[in-house]
Amino acid sequence: MGRPDFEKAGGLVPAVVQDADTGEVLMLAYMDEEAYRRTLETGKAWYYSRSRNRHWMKGESSGHVQEVREVRVDCDADAVLLKVRQVGGAACHTGYRSCFYRRVEGGRWVEDGRRVFDPAEVYGR
Amino acid sequence: MGRPDFEKAGGLVPAVVQDADTGEVLMLAYMDEEAYRRTLETGKAWYYSRSRNRHWMKGESSGHVQEVREVRVDCDADAVLLKVRQVGGAACHTGYRSCFYRRVEGGRWVEDGRRVFDPAEVYGR
Repeated sequence: MGRPDFEKAGGLVPAVVQDADTGEVLMLAYMDEEAYRRTLETGKAWYYSRSRNRHWMKGESSGHVQEVREVRVDCDADAVLLKVRQVGGAACHTGYRSCFYRRVEGGRWVEDGRRVFDPAEVYGR
Repeated sequence: MGRPDFEKAGGLVPAVVQDADTGEVLMLAYMDEEAYRRTLETGKAWYYSRSRNRHWMKGESSGHVQEVREVRVDCDADAVLLKVRQVGGAACHTGYRSCFYRRVEGGRWVEDGRRVFDPAEVYGR
């Protein structure tokens, strides 16, 4: 075997993205077979956007690409783990380092993350 | 806001499970609203199995439960991150510490993980 089971997963598998150095989980996105292939070929993280129905390279707008250090596949071959170097220091379009910048506390959400950039400056107003 | 957007996600959101101490990503599973509620209430990780169409508590067969230290939600509120203490030291039903025990190398998969238990002993033959 050499590729995730995209068929079983209905075409898309979730990709967990982890900072290769710190181990911080930065984001979760989805890959189809083409995004997986491009990721392996280019060494940059490619995903498939379910809302925009198209492939995207992380950082294509912001310049904050993800250099892929390692790709792993889970036991059922229906999830992928990428270990990356996050250029620009932030994975989230909100400017936070990680998309998981909210912690659940007593049922409520508390912001608890590092904001690295101002989205208005990076993506334009 | 106080809960992930289960509706937008079609009822299920992916939950990334990370070792609270080492940062290792242990597995990816899915939660519906009820699994999310039970997880917050009990402090043990509950998921929803898409193949078995039922809720399950991680460790209900093996005893290898996950004690939840922290719950986080991503920017789009359609993915969850759990930081857990993995009782028994292994999250994967194969006996590996992490379900992501295979690394992609030159398009091929290489086993590269720590096996903690023998599944035949834990789950019976």
